[in-house]
Amino acid sequence: MAKINKLLVANRGEIALRVMRSAKEMGIKTVAIYSEADRNALHVRYADEAVCVGPPPSNQSYLLGDKIIEICKQLQVDAIHPGYGFLSENAAFADKVKKAGLIFVGPSSESIEVMGSKIAAKQAASKFNIPMVPGTDKAITDIAEAKETAKKIGYPILVKASAGGGGKGMRLVENEEEFEEQMQRAVSEAMSAFGDGAVFIEKFITSPKHIEIQVLGDQHGNTIHLFERECSVQRRHQKVVEEAPSAVLTPKVRKAMGEAAVGVAKSCNYYGAGTVEFIVDKDLNFYFLEMNTRLQVEHPVTEQITGVDLVKQQIKIAQGEVLSIKQEDLKILGHSVEVRVYAEDPKNNFLPDIGKLQTYVRPQGPGIRVDDGFEQGMDIPIYYDPMIAKLVATGKDRTEAIERMIRAIDEYQITGIETTLPFCKFVLQHPAFVSGKFDTKFVENYFTPEVLKSIPSEEESEIAALVAVMAFENEKNKQASSSAATATPQQASKWKERMR
Amino acid sequence: MAKINKLLVANRGEIALRVMRSAKEMGIKTVAIYSEADRNALHVRYADEAVCVGPPPSNQSYLLGDKIIEICKQLQVDAIHPGYGFLSENAAFADKVKKAGLIFVGPSSESIEVMGSKIAAKQAASKFNIPMVPGTDKAITDIAEAKETAKKIGYPILVKASAGGGGKGMRLVENEEEFEEQMQRAVSEAMSAFGDGAVFIEKFITSPKHIEIQVLGDQHGNTIHLFERECSVQRRHQKVVEEAPSAVLTPKVRKAMGEAAVGVAKSCNYYGAGTVEFIVDKDLNFYFLEMNTRLQVEHPVTEQITGVDLVKQQIKIAQGEVLSIKQEDLKILGHSVEVRVYAEDPKNNFLPDIGKLQTYVRPQGPGIRVDDGFEQGMDIPIYYDPMIAKLVATGKDRTEAIERMIRAIDEYQITGIETTLPFCKFVLQHPAFVSGKFDTKFVENYFTPEVLKSIPSEEESEIAALVAVMAFENEKNKQASSSAATATPQQASKWKERMR
Repeated sequence: MAKINKLLVANRGEIALRVMRSAKEMGIKTVAIYSEADRNALHVRYADEAVCVGPPPSNQSYLLGDKIIEICKQLQVDAIHPGYGFLSENAAFADKVKKAGLIFVGPSSESIEVMGSKIAAKQAASKFNIPMVPGTDKAITDIAEAKETAKKIGYPILVKASAGGGGKGMRLVENEEEFEEQMQRAVSEAMSAFGDGAVFIEKFITSPKHIEIQVLGDQHGNTIHLFERECSVQRRHQKVVEEAPSAVLTPKVRKAMGEAAVGVAKSCNYYGAGTVEFIVDKDLNFYFLEMNTRLQVEHPVTEQITGVDLVKQQIKIAQGEVLSIKQEDLKILGHSVEVRVYAEDPKNNFLPDIGKLQTYVRPQGPGIRVDDGFEQGMDIPIYYDPMIAKLVATGKDRTEAIERMIRAIDEYQITGIETTLPFCKFVLQHPAFVSGKFDTKFVENYFTPEVLKSIPSEEESEIAALVAVMAFENEKNKQASSSAATATPQQASKWKERMR
Repeated sequence: MAKINKLLVANRGEIALRVMRSAKEMGIKTVAIYSEADRNALHVRYADEAVCVGPPPSNQSYLLGDKIIEICKQLQVDAIHPGYGFLSENAAFADKVKKAGLIFVGPSSESIEVMGSKIAAKQAASKFNIPMVPGTDKAITDIAEAKETAKKIGYPILVKASAGGGGKGMRLVENEEEFEEQMQRAVSEAMSAFGDGAVFIEKFITSPKHIEIQVLGDQHGNTIHLFERECSVQRRHQKVVEEAPSAVLTPKVRKAMGEAAVGVAKSCNYYGAGTVEFIVDKDLNFYFLEMNTRLQVEHPVTEQITGVDLVKQQIKIAQGEVLSIKQEDLKILGHSVEVRVYAEDPKNNFLPDIGKLQTYVRPQGPGIRVDDGFEQGMDIPIYYDPMIAKLVATGKDRTEAIERMIRAIDEYQITGIETTLPFCKFVLQHPAFVSGKFDTKFVENYFTPEVLKSIPSEEESEIAALVAVMAFENEKNKQASSSAATATPQQASKWKERMR
């Protein structure tokens, strides 16, 4: 066992802070790296030591693996936590870290490599009987053979050009009757577009959900899962609202998915924290999609419902400790929802709205956790992902978690920039979300900027608020000089409504 | 069942906000009352409506029950939540509220009345076989009779003057051999001090712990307990650190205490949330002390380890709902510690240090909850209890909760006034606290202002920080113009150490 005494966090923003908090609780010293654009960032202030690695963009700073390893040597650092993004799924970097005699807080470079390739991942997983989207594993040109395969898979199916991309040569076939015609069209489309008529056949998943399983494995062959996260609410393949557990899984399916996820992890001798992503159809059939070999953005909802600090587990595993949690010890202790708060204007096609956080007051109270990297008065830098915060609401059940989230969104005070909070509130209040019966098309199906138009913009609110505050002050002065003093300050009430 | 649509919170500060948050999550409109000193308080801004009730001190504002009831009538309020303190345990007020056709979110005035009198409370509880500190229930003057009684109770015992007070005529008797001599001394002391030689005999509890049980009862006779809170760390009978569960109770004692607490509640037909306080000796014998007929300051630790929102339960019970939680549903889900952060200087005999919160940045991250009523730039008013916040840290076990609390205390940034945070950190780090084996004498036994003297005062830190920041900036500028840019900014490191 190699005790970590000093940890460098090769990341920025909320996740750098998140990792350092756990390290601090474990008595581990922390080193931050930062780009010139992040000089005043919170993660720099939070760390015990901080080193500038270069200017933005990231390929001149946060992605400079060799330089980061060099810093570790200079500062007697013994481990690197990569967070998510940046170098977190870079097998070559993980390998270099190890060769430099340092601990990489993450899986082996071999595991990263296997799971980094969709084909290699599926090949590895197939030995463990993991369900995958049924389809041909090689291209077909013969129609009779294709028809036979399609029948075996079951309709609806998708015919996809082997050389394809961008939907070209892709055809949805609902039943056997239309198979021949659609197949021929796909082949000829593929031929004219790519000069290659070969096609694959794959089952078409109607109304798919994206559900993922958190796994933890140690370096001694013990692997457990920590239940699922429902991440179907996505905008342009970016998750925007996540929750744990899923509102639709049965205990039986949950168990089966958990076991499948453990199988996927074992297929690549995985250790550390990882996430196995599945597509789930409306009949709760699930199919392996891919494995993310790092801590996920949305890991807090799992922490909230299991009581397990995933970062501490990562560090303990990296130290070579035997996993202290047994599968049977884990219980789902409540329900947790996370929304990602971005500096983007949901009324204006989610254009980044970079600037200064004039007001920044986080929600508080029971069941609320905010993971962020900003304080009031700070600027959101233009160089990075414009995520301001992850707002997490936990309750005894899904209803309470949603009610708390809406209360917390209303409490969150951010001025100076537009944020996705109104969009998040729209999602949380939507009947489809509340019912739990939604799929990855949620945003596409239900959201238009118009649904937010009735809400006044931040600037309009500010003017209205100023007027209302003046009225409130007048009212107060009147009250102070009156002995009755029981009148309702209606203006104040209105002002407060607006400010929320 | 009477659905509450609009709730007036007859309180201020953190508890007013706490109550309003739950009300908001339940879709209930809220009304704040405030004194002229609290015009800009957060609870005023948070409520849907707010009414000034008069100037400080409280007997001219927050304690004006009739005026508060009048406000409810004017604003179509249907219920009053009293919080803790102020009118919360005023039986006459609870009665008036009811007679005005309003709902009092709390127990009946009868329950408040019974439990408000120590004698009536013990009489009521005695019918339910609740353990009480053994002793004589009437005064004795006869030595032989007294000796017999003392033998029955078991040594050590306390001989207390019936007419006594201030320790006069009080004698600790360790064993039977010294009984006669000590009894005679007590009687003669009592005689000369009060002209009355009658004495009581009571068991002396060595190394007592203060442990209380949270109960919830509905208006239909269902009563449950939500385990214990350990509140032995007190300063001048004021709790300063609380936790749940207790580090020393066995499951068997926990169950027995829970059942005893339910018995106490039933003895006065209690409904609502209440707390039954016990004295626990070092052999885990427990004795009923008193019942608090309101929400306690330290209720969050119970919420954290059970997942139950106590304020929501209070409101549901007040609406006449049947308790939806069964005793067997409740499990202890982790460990939670709370410290009370006061605007007091622990290095200067805990003198209140009133002023402006120049910097006020709360700790964040996993397991941290802050219940407070202030934002940066606000003043702590001189008229009220100088509590700034309740800082709550929750983890999977006691060790993690303590580690998180220390991390959170280090993260809490408050300047402009002195606070009890360094004192709280001292307690959390003390071996006696860590061991769990401490009693109500913890502060008396272990704390002196000198133990904090090595920590620089807030003003000294500020000067040191300014110097360090300047050095840091220089260092940064050097780094920015250097291509190596890997030097450690030692000054910054030092600055950050200090700022924490």
